[in-house]
Amino acid sequence: MSTANAIKLYAAATPNGIKIPILLELLGLKYDYQKINFSTNEQKEDWYLKLNPNGRIPTLVDSSTGVTIGQTAAILQYLTDTYDKDHKFSYKFGTKEYYKQLEYLIFSVAEQGPITGQLGHFTFAAPEKIPYAINRYSTDVKRILGVFELILSRNKEGLFLVGNHISIVDISVLGWANNLARVNIDVNEFSLFSKWLESIKAIPEVQKGLTALN
Amino acid sequence: MSTANAIKLYAAATPNGIKIPILLELLGLKYDYQKINFSTNEQKEDWYLKLNPNGRIPTLVDSSTGVTIGQTAAILQYLTDTYDKDHKFSYKFGTKEYYKQLEYLIFSVAEQGPITGQLGHFTFAAPEKIPYAINRYSTDVKRILGVFELILSRNKEGLFLVGNHISIVDISVLGWANNLARVNIDVNEFSLFSKWLESIKAIPEVQKGLTALN
Repeated sequence: MSTANAIKLYAAATPNGIKIPILLELLGLKYDYQKINFSTNEQKEDWYLKLNPNGRIPTLVDSSTGVTIGQTAAILQYLTDTYDKDHKFSYKFGTKEYYKQLEYLIFSVAEQGPITGQLGHFTFAAPEKIPYAINRYSTDVKRILGVFELILSRNKEGLFLVGNHISIVDISVLGWANNLARVNIDVNEFSLFSKWLESIKAIPEVQKGLTALN
Repeated sequence: MSTANAIKLYAAATPNGIKIPILLELLGLKYDYQKINFSTNEQKEDWYLKLNPNGRIPTLVDSSTGVTIGQTAAILQYLTDTYDKDHKFSYKFGTKEYYKQLEYLIFSVAEQGPITGQLGHFTFAAPEKIPYAINRYSTDVKRILGVFELILSRNKEGLFLVGNHISIVDISVLGWANNLARVNIDVNEFSLFSKWLESIKAIPEVQKGLTALN
């Protein structure tokens, strides 16, 4: 009889969803995956809202600590706080690098994610073409990529958003940077950012994580 | 001769800006305030981008720790990590309450802030009236307020988003909940949320912080 893993991930293969298996692969943690079916609005069912009042994916339940947690960036932070004691994929609590990591993680979730998401909506999903909205969000996605380009240009320690190794910031930013051609954004206009993107995607655990929820 | 305070805040009186003086007042911390002039695009000047590559407010510089940090939620977390050792306005690192605080803080910055911001843009700033966009963001702001209503209804410890006292989550959510009538949202449709809002705003330090940047 198979034994359940301590970690259970409720998710789907979205720009946010894929971030969690990428980190779980890097941390070498086994987990059970339950795909949430958007076509039946499963994420708004009562049983799921008990786990995640926002009714969105991903949610992680860790029976070894008793923690149930939603919101992608919070899950990334929780997992490294709990399982990255050697700080291979994060920076130590209270250090200057930790607060750079937190600042850029918040930037990723407060601006990169929502703005790229709105660009996707007005490019693909909206029932009418609204040039003003497409231009607004396309312009802002490019501005945001320019901020990442500036951050990378200032980091003399390596091609990472913070410090000399990959961290949850790189994973967070990757999720929304992986498919920008779909929204007519050419990442090659940002030379450091496009190099960074290729180097992060070349990591075997990242490759594995990127397709783990398909 | 007056001595500069250790903490310097670069900000302006916006829904994000006001969150920082509210917390600083609660923590009883003195600070110097430099208003950033949006009308001259001061937030995009080189000297400011050195402090904050995103070119947005607020930014906090703490000369007593050497930390310079941007992004509102990151600043709130930094200040309580550093100055709220008794956990009067935050929850202890690693506890279940800490991760609820983090989850809802991320929800506030990843959804409440950007979506309310977009509603404001399409209500006031956009050069053309686009009913589709106004309806889209108005509907989502109401959905988000419904999530806060659900969170409040589940908390049996008090009228707070987490636990039995005010925390950085309440401060974060307040910043964007304070002026919803301006975007034609009636918070009274959400009974617990509107009670919560009144009770948080009644705290003297919150009142002082709300107008500190004017």
